[in-house]
Amino acid sequence: MILTVTLNTALDVTHRVPRLLPHTSHRVTGVTERPGGKGLNVARVLAALGDEVTATGFAGGPTGQVVRELLAAAPGVTDALVPCAGTTRRTLAVVDESTGDTTQFNEPGPQISPAEWAAFLERYAELLPGARAVALCGSLPPGVPVGAYAVLVRAARAAGAPVLLDTSGEALRRGVAARPEIIKPNAAELAELTGSRDPLPATRDARRRGAHAVVTSLGADGLLAATPEGTWHAAPPRPLRGNPTGAGDSAVAGLLSALVRGLDWPERLVRAVALSAATVHAPTAGEFDPRTYEEVRGSVKVTSGQPD
Amino acid sequence: MILTVTLNTALDVTHRVPRLLPHTSHRVTGVTERPGGKGLNVARVLAALGDEVTATGFAGGPTGQVVRELLAAAPGVTDALVPCAGTTRRTLAVVDESTGDTTQFNEPGPQISPAEWAAFLERYAELLPGARAVALCGSLPPGVPVGAYAVLVRAARAAGAPVLLDTSGEALRRGVAARPEIIKPNAAELAELTGSRDPLPATRDARRRGAHAVVTSLGADGLLAATPEGTWHAAPPRPLRGNPTGAGDSAVAGLLSALVRGLDWPERLVRAVALSAATVHAPTAGEFDPRTYEEVRGSVKVTSGQPD
Repeated sequence: MILTVTLNTALDVTHRVPRLLPHTSHRVTGVTERPGGKGLNVARVLAALGDEVTATGFAGGPTGQVVRELLAAAPGVTDALVPCAGTTRRTLAVVDESTGDTTQFNEPGPQISPAEWAAFLERYAELLPGARAVALCGSLPPGVPVGAYAVLVRAARAAGAPVLLDTSGEALRRGVAARPEIIKPNAAELAELTGSRDPLPATRDARRRGAHAVVTSLGADGLLAATPEGTWHAAPPRPLRGNPTGAGDSAVAGLLSALVRGLDWPERLVRAVALSAATVHAPTAGEFDPRTYEEVRGSVKVTSGQPD
Repeated sequence: MILTVTLNTALDVTHRVPRLLPHTSHRVTGVTERPGGKGLNVARVLAALGDEVTATGFAGGPTGQVVRELLAAAPGVTDALVPCAGTTRRTLAVVDESTGDTTQFNEPGPQISPAEWAAFLERYAELLPGARAVALCGSLPPGVPVGAYAVLVRAARAAGAPVLLDTSGEALRRGVAARPEIIKPNAAELAELTGSRDPLPATRDARRRGAHAVVTSLGADGLLAATPEGTWHAAPPRPLRGNPTGAGDSAVAGLLSALVRGLDWPERLVRAVALSAATVHAPTAGEFDPRTYEEVRGSVKVTSGQPD
């Protein structure tokens, strides 16, 4: 199975309002809830692709309970979340139906105690022997040590499981130094890590900091990958209009799904780009449209760069 | 005891953000939750005043469970809520800390089935014999008949319990026709009921539609009451700055608390105005500041109008 780690899981709540007017009262016309946090999004896409997937991380309080119930209702993801005393955070997306724009409010997440962190490490160690690949995704909740991802990368490497790390800031900096197989920053995260806003040199610089492969998301322009096998740019045949929420998580799922199938880098990138495009194009944020996935898969343009 | 009815209870969530910028992502710096819906607010204020109070209405799903747990944690309110299969709504208040302004998002509330409505009516009938007064507060959740408040007013009258009705729109229009003891509209609700924006004639018109007494909230200008004993205007000694959230619910609690103590109309109005002022002045929205309450109680100006 593929193991996804979401230390700061969330209940993603979406409120639809006819028109957002700051400092007024709004009648919410539509409410949807789903399990959130990058790693749970990745797990859901992997399950939809037919991959066996187990999700761990923390879940606690009434919102944690809802996250677990929603996870159980959507088949294909094995729940290996570790309970915590604090309450799982909510993220609220307010969608203004007059413009389609989204305003986002993210709660900070529960305080994790040292005993809870130790319980998680134990659970993670139990799960690693069965993992063909590991995804470490998203922010760290309060109380989890900032070097957490470095610890988790090393444990996975010791167990022989390749790791994809998708986080930002200091958690990314520390995690990269532990030499994960893949990191997948976006342009802003990469600039924060390397100090450079020029994607190609910055992507290569990130490899020198420890990541075996760096796949940088360029938004609508696709993915730029610097790997031991070479450098590639992979782009959709045409820019797709839609909601980019979750497109990065779908790319992570595409990379991992292809990796465990033993596919080479160009094919991994094709799947990642096609899944991203199919997510942007889906009617529901964070889901992917299977028809768009199949269509785009056949027409992603992969350009080889200089040998890396 | 005083019985408060909140058919559309809520979990009131407050998010504090440094600055609200539509169409961007916000890190929420503070999260608070409390039981909401007008009747639960009234119950909490009554409990703080030392009145015995029982709260009924509907609660369901994970948010309903949180409402009941928070209600149990704040002593003084007896929980007689009736379970429903749907999920109790959330209301979200986003407070912009740079200006103090609040942007509100209100979910619609659970669908109530005919069987659930029948179960509520049975519970209400069991509670009425012990009630010295009844407060019927707030909006109706989907599925509850629009004439619900008229049914509840008549049942309370048959049991000999005076009723205060605090709602709006068609639910108010139908409820008034069943002749409640008191209604407490604000100026907008009163205008919707009577078609007149002139508070004194509109307040008197509302009496002719069936309410024994009409207490109209004039915001910072206090209360205007048309009653069988006379007409009064009651105002705080000076306008108070602060957050008006919950001031109307505190006024309802003040009227009922004074009513069950057998106090006359001028004294009821003094308490209602002083509690409203103490709520506007409290550091936390919807709570009241006991010192302000005691201070303002001694200085509310009650002016008698023409005999009504």
